[in-house]
Amino acid sequence: MQVTQSHDVTGHVDFVGAGPGDPELLTLKAIKAFESADIVLHDRLISAEILQLAGKTAVLVDVGKAGFGPSWKQADIDALLVDYATKGQRVVRLKSGDPTVFGRLDEEIEAVEAAGVPWQIVPGITAASAAVASIGQSLTQRGRNSSVRFLTGHDMKGFADHDWNALARPGAVAAIYMGKKSARFIQGRLIMHGADRATPITLVENASRPDQRILATDLDRLPNDLSAAEMDGPTLTFFGLAPRHAVQALTEFKKEHA
Amino acid sequence: MQVTQSHDVTGHVDFVGAGPGDPELLTLKAIKAFESADIVLHDRLISAEILQLAGKTAVLVDVGKAGFGPSWKQADIDALLVDYATKGQRVVRLKSGDPTVFGRLDEEIEAVEAAGVPWQIVPGITAASAAVASIGQSLTQRGRNSSVRFLTGHDMKGFADHDWNALARPGAVAAIYMGKKSARFIQGRLIMHGADRATPITLVENASRPDQRILATDLDRLPNDLSAAEMDGPTLTFFGLAPRHAVQALTEFKKEHA
Repeated sequence: MQVTQSHDVTGHVDFVGAGPGDPELLTLKAIKAFESADIVLHDRLISAEILQLAGKTAVLVDVGKAGFGPSWKQADIDALLVDYATKGQRVVRLKSGDPTVFGRLDEEIEAVEAAGVPWQIVPGITAASAAVASIGQSLTQRGRNSSVRFLTGHDMKGFADHDWNALARPGAVAAIYMGKKSARFIQGRLIMHGADRATPITLVENASRPDQRILATDLDRLPNDLSAAEMDGPTLTFFGLAPRHAVQALTEFKKEHA
Repeated sequence: MQVTQSHDVTGHVDFVGAGPGDPELLTLKAIKAFESADIVLHDRLISAEILQLAGKTAVLVDVGKAGFGPSWKQADIDALLVDYATKGQRVVRLKSGDPTVFGRLDEEIEAVEAAGVPWQIVPGITAASAAVASIGQSLTQRGRNSSVRFLTGHDMKGFADHDWNALARPGAVAAIYMGKKSARFIQGRLIMHGADRATPITLVENASRPDQRILATDLDRLPNDLSAAEMDGPTLTFFGLAPRHAVQALTEFKKEHA
């Protein structure tokens, strides 16, 4: 939402999607916002290659909620955004992926809006999009699934509950964000609701980054395979999708053994 | 999926997401693929501003399925991709939005793969992402919805059927692609499954383009308001989301009249 600046001294806040990690997956619009920023407040997971694209005079502040150093509360981030912008600074609030997908954006927008600061959202490539490209699949496919769900493994109450019954149906496809810790919970819920234990599951760690790893498994083996893989980076879990070459290999295997 | 070229004369195919229309919403990776392409096969809806970014010697071919001139069949497009790539050309197959989201990508990948042509997917900003940014909302929000669905209004059998029961629940959010013609069908199904007639619905026509229009309505008024608005461009329908300022206005209205 583009809001016109009321006068020259007013700063503004751009909520910018940094994409999944590969700097080449930034949009031109994100780069422009980034290059002209006076200050960049960024999440912990933003890669160094991306932070290097900020203008030389820009101040970079890591407001990530984990890691060493003082922990940032949401209210502190909100206050910082408003503080800089009302002093006339061009603020970029840089978030991994797309800020509108599990980006916890709304509280920050509300704070900025309440202070009368102009703002806009610059969309980014969300992790599901980069991860599915890396396995050569589509999130939707004619004749297979005419919808796709983006879920989070966690919500404010702990492991997030979902419409497991619908997900358990043949052909359903979901992209699960933050699904590692809740993998066993999700497995249990889906099997309880009748999902096929052989439903393909693919995990993509560090999608689009040089250290990207792909783990192809199924619903039955998910917790064990995930535990064995020791994935430490941000990971996207696809329910109902196998990597394209694995699909082909399986089809050929079935043909040979038919 | 990056596949190494076997030898120098082999061409390749990049399936590239052009984003929703604003050239600034292209990724750097898309632009690089585009600038170095020998031939670009593009959908009908790709804007002239984006096509101008192709290298000066690139051949542009509109393989859109509507409009004047001979109609392109999917098999013809598949054959053309393979034909150019096996002649050593760098082919870009440019699709609106993100090619993995309702992009009808798989048949083309299968054709290219069967011919042994290297290929990759370059993700793009999907229409839902740009459209939700334009109304200042998030696709997901803590405490409201821990999942979001991307649906299509049409599938191969006509109006697409979905898990209406789950969608009809309070707080559900969906981004409906190609939802204009099926608006009355969707309305009927959702109301039949108990959805609140006052559920906010927002339509964004030509998201991110200069001629973008936003229509804020609700489930009850959807067919009539949509008909009156005469939206001809590609339109994204949000179920369960109102534009941020309309949300605020409504909250203030309710406060004043409480």
